[in-house]
Amino acid sequence: MRRAVRLSLAALGETSPNPNVGCVLVAPDGTVVGEGRTAPAGGPHAEVRALAEAGERARGATAYVTLEPCDHTGRTGPCTRALIAAGVARVVVAVRDPNPVAAGGLDTLRAAGIVVEEGVLADAARAAMIGWLTAVGRGTPYVIWKFAATLDGRSAAADGTSQWITSPEARADVHRIRAGVDAVIAGIGTVLADDPHLTVRTADGPAARQPLRVVVDGAGRIPAGANVLDGAAPTWVATAPDGGRVDLSGMLRHLYDQGVRTALLEGGPTLAGAFLAEGLVDRVVAYLAPKLLGAGPAALGAAGISTIAEALTLDVVDLAMVGPDVRLTATVKGA
Amino acid sequence: MRRAVRLSLAALGETSPNPNVGCVLVAPDGTVVGEGRTAPAGGPHAEVRALAEAGERARGATAYVTLEPCDHTGRTGPCTRALIAAGVARVVVAVRDPNPVAAGGLDTLRAAGIVVEEGVLADAARAAMIGWLTAVGRGTPYVIWKFAATLDGRSAAADGTSQWITSPEARADVHRIRAGVDAVIAGIGTVLADDPHLTVRTADGPAARQPLRVVVDGAGRIPAGANVLDGAAPTWVATAPDGGRVDLSGMLRHLYDQGVRTALLEGGPTLAGAFLAEGLVDRVVAYLAPKLLGAGPAALGAAGISTIAEALTLDVVDLAMVGPDVRLTATVKGA
Repeated sequence: MRRAVRLSLAALGETSPNPNVGCVLVAPDGTVVGEGRTAPAGGPHAEVRALAEAGERARGATAYVTLEPCDHTGRTGPCTRALIAAGVARVVVAVRDPNPVAAGGLDTLRAAGIVVEEGVLADAARAAMIGWLTAVGRGTPYVIWKFAATLDGRSAAADGTSQWITSPEARADVHRIRAGVDAVIAGIGTVLADDPHLTVRTADGPAARQPLRVVVDGAGRIPAGANVLDGAAPTWVATAPDGGRVDLSGMLRHLYDQGVRTALLEGGPTLAGAFLAEGLVDRVVAYLAPKLLGAGPAALGAAGISTIAEALTLDVVDLAMVGPDVRLTATVKGA
Repeated sequence: MRRAVRLSLAALGETSPNPNVGCVLVAPDGTVVGEGRTAPAGGPHAEVRALAEAGERARGATAYVTLEPCDHTGRTGPCTRALIAAGVARVVVAVRDPNPVAAGGLDTLRAAGIVVEEGVLADAARAAMIGWLTAVGRGTPYVIWKFAATLDGRSAAADGTSQWITSPEARADVHRIRAGVDAVIAGIGTVLADDPHLTVRTADGPAARQPLRVVVDGAGRIPAGANVLDGAAPTWVATAPDGGRVDLSGMLRHLYDQGVRTALLEGGPTLAGAFLAEGLVDRVVAYLAPKLLGAGPAALGAAGISTIAEALTLDVVDLAMVGPDVRLTATVKGA
């Protein structure tokens, strides 16, 4: 199952609107006879790919799957039928499918005489699929807010300069996170100030798969020549009918309907404050440069909090050095 | 020597103006026959205490000492003479004494026929004695700036409330740091706003040894009933002759002359900014609570930096969770 979770993590960002599932088939003698991870939407699910690799050796094998195999026919046939047809003897599942349309797979497998176990390495599998699981459970994307700041919380110096607060290592790490989400969201303020591309670049150049770029631009101020409007990736500009504020919840529901399961919010401070004030952030990734400025704009703007008892409280889930910088990952309590 | 370094760390905060030295005596058969750490000023040095514990068993033994044994007579006799008189065969030293008055110990030992080695575990020993070594090398105390802030760099909410940003675990950790320094420095702004005691409290109540409390109060605004003026520890109020700004460098030199080797600067933002602008901070300890406020005063005020290229750059030397909070320890480059 540990190997299946690794496959699940490797599929992050490739599979939406489908979950990033990993599957490993093991023969009775302990040999791995097949493995697979969910292919991009419309392609085969993890189980089907593992079965294809195993061929006849799937007969009598055990399938380790990070998510309950689907029981319905979408763009692909149900995985339960494929597992039964291949003669798999036992299916070990980490996490149940929260999606009522696809669920019921374990019952179908049991009815076919297959031995079923569930809950194995459930925490690790849930962590690997947390974006998809959360999004499907409520109908809006899982939102990760990423920001970079100095140790004293500044996102730029007093004169507005901000390139670069964090190190090349931290910036490369951001591209790795972008590669794992379906959409990257920025405010018009950031677009006007920094003119970012918001694309995924690797050491070898632009990545083959690019997340959707979303610019929150209530009044439609985006310049025609903005870098986010280049052809490197699809871009949506979210405007408000009256030129006022964009309805963020509505925007997220719309993104979900279009297949977006995970989104990376890249600020700036005003948009991040609005997302946080509305409870729309699930996870925070802070890149803290060991630098001090003592002046300059704050990394986070008004979030509707006026007294210490109302402070938004997070749980730190990871703390790491990325080059000279600190990366802190935390989940929003109650989110 | 590892054991000697542990003794050195245990003596932190007890020994100024003397260094926090550790010494372990090992007999030729590998048995530890004596160990000691520097006693409070006027009391015996580490070597003398270890020799006293070893008695006759010191003859032929090896002494592991974190700092070159002193060669001069201060309030105690030279340690070199004590080591020679006890018949120690070999002295292993981690770090040389930078203090010209006390140095020369290794030559004296060699002249007496004792085998001398130096540089063993030098980095660990230097780290344990960094405050004293730095202070003695330049004639001003080693200054540690401690601050507590939210993840977005706020030291209080918009309405001024700040109790408590950090956890009880983090606050206990601050008392542990206070216990290891000779002086605690705060600005009049902090005294007026929070009325802190600035004493060392442990789980069992106030600590027996209390660092000097220093209030930077140019215009002499401190109220007679302020908690820092209670009798729990000695307090100095630094005022300026003309009621203007206190000369911070001069104040630090004066503290050094009074025996202060290490000082903990506890803010607030204005005083911290002034210390940093003048290059008077050696180390930063940041307690970052995983909380977001989006408004409220910044943890650090104006430090004379206006553009990103001038940002004060630190080296992270330790990163740890303290309860739910993050503690980041960093050294100031070039300090």
